[in-house]
Amino acid sequence: MPEVIYLNGKLVSPAEAVISVNDRGFLFGDAVYEVVRSYEGRLWSFERHMRRLARNLAEVDMGGVDVGAIGRAIQEAYAASELPDALIYLQITRGVAPRAHHYTGGMKPTVLITVRDITGSVAEVDPKGMTAITAPDLRWRRCDIKSTNLLPNILAKTKAHQAEAYEAILVHPDGYVTEGSSTSVFWVRDGKVCTMPQGPEILPSISRRIVIEICEEEGLPLVEEHCPLEQFRKADEIFLASTTPEVCPIILLDGAAVADGKAGPITKRLREAFRRRVEAGEDAVPG
Amino acid sequence: MPEVIYLNGKLVSPAEAVISVNDRGFLFGDAVYEVVRSYEGRLWSFERHMRRLARNLAEVDMGGVDVGAIGRAIQEAYAASELPDALIYLQITRGVAPRAHHYTGGMKPTVLITVRDITGSVAEVDPKGMTAITAPDLRWRRCDIKSTNLLPNILAKTKAHQAEAYEAILVHPDGYVTEGSSTSVFWVRDGKVCTMPQGPEILPSISRRIVIEICEEEGLPLVEEHCPLEQFRKADEIFLASTTPEVCPIILLDGAAVADGKAGPITKRLREAFRRRVEAGEDAVPG
Repeated sequence: MPEVIYLNGKLVSPAEAVISVNDRGFLFGDAVYEVVRSYEGRLWSFERHMRRLARNLAEVDMGGVDVGAIGRAIQEAYAASELPDALIYLQITRGVAPRAHHYTGGMKPTVLITVRDITGSVAEVDPKGMTAITAPDLRWRRCDIKSTNLLPNILAKTKAHQAEAYEAILVHPDGYVTEGSSTSVFWVRDGKVCTMPQGPEILPSISRRIVIEICEEEGLPLVEEHCPLEQFRKADEIFLASTTPEVCPIILLDGAAVADGKAGPITKRLREAFRRRVEAGEDAVPG
Repeated sequence: MPEVIYLNGKLVSPAEAVISVNDRGFLFGDAVYEVVRSYEGRLWSFERHMRRLARNLAEVDMGGVDVGAIGRAIQEAYAASELPDALIYLQITRGVAPRAHHYTGGMKPTVLITVRDITGSVAEVDPKGMTAITAPDLRWRRCDIKSTNLLPNILAKTKAHQAEAYEAILVHPDGYVTEGSSTSVFWVRDGKVCTMPQGPEILPSISRRIVIEICEEEGLPLVEEHCPLEQFRKADEIFLASTTPEVCPIILLDGAAVADGKAGPITKRLREAFRRRVEAGEDAVPG
């Protein structure tokens, strides 16, 4: 089934799925986005995504968007797809205006929703372990805003793909690991699960938050810390957390084995607990 | 006359000036741009803009673009406008593909050129002096690449406009002045003309380069330095350099007068020398 596309209030064909060259999303990256996943017809962590969206819109001064209506539009687009397991992409731009850096009030936002099958992307992830490279974190100073200013992310991700790795793990100029180009990063040291503290240097990832909740439930100690790259390389385990790969072990980093080069016990335990949450559907809403 | 729009090889009407929602320029800001000005039918600093474009394309791994053909397209679009004094905007994206962070080779870039009258924007600039605010520099760590990842720039510029100021002058987290949200910044201290050293923290601005050349010609000492904001506020003169305002005095910063609150003698001298260069047309090519 081809991608379902919903643009500014209606389902459209690929040929109709066009925006003006003067859309500020195109000219300036003046836009925020969300990626929501469905499992067997239910939208996973949907309310959390909508809350994050509302925060992002406020942070970029697009406060006038009706997030409730956006949520209903996502549900309508998803229903039209008839896909049990889908990746739903939402992008909201400030709208169309003759090019000028500053914006004015009263603009009509552009709302794009696309829905496509996720099974191919999921199949690329081997739960036994994936590989990563490291790359400099070149991003801006408000990575907590999920904006479409993604040039540093896509350059890093492509560098990873060119090295036949799944992800690029980003390293701040001050030497510590922040997150992946499109994933959160965790590491395990002496039985403790570690990750960067939430702040402007990382995305408030919903998968990251769920992993932290699972650690609390499972009684696993959780440490939020700035981890120098040299220490990161010596971690007992490394894993990613994100919508598509869920909890995903990293067993090779820059070509070197992480610990013994196999998915570690804590990563496996967290992956299984994450999967149980998905199967219980406790954080999902009907599509 | 409405905007002239040239998209992917031909002149189009505004209704035809649309791109796919899957254009990577729209989804990721995976694009570079240039802004060229014409004076009385001649394209100012055109060769320099084309050289910078070639460098930007290489930096973002879009090396396959024929810059010579882009230059001819700009000249064709400009000729169609019949405007003596125009602002010509060029944006090149990596092209259209189903959304995935990484890109692959062999994509067909999207090329957008728009031409519009510049006289209204020029008239907004008072050569006697303009106002500015300061704002945190939130941009990424490769500001030397002229990409469309401009969300931090447009947020800062809008903050300036909301404060009825012309420009937002950006201050690095380490406390020094980098550049404006869409302009280069200079300051004068004890008869010396000062600006940030070229590097990844600022755009290789062509107007900045011309000002530096004029300083050499005029025998004015030029200092490239990291200037703390407190010192910047005490400058004898502050001015911007950019395509639209050329050399433009800043006489009010965050509501406080810069020195005696009038355009200073060195700024005036540089503005006049810049104007003489424009009138001589030595750096321009026929449109």
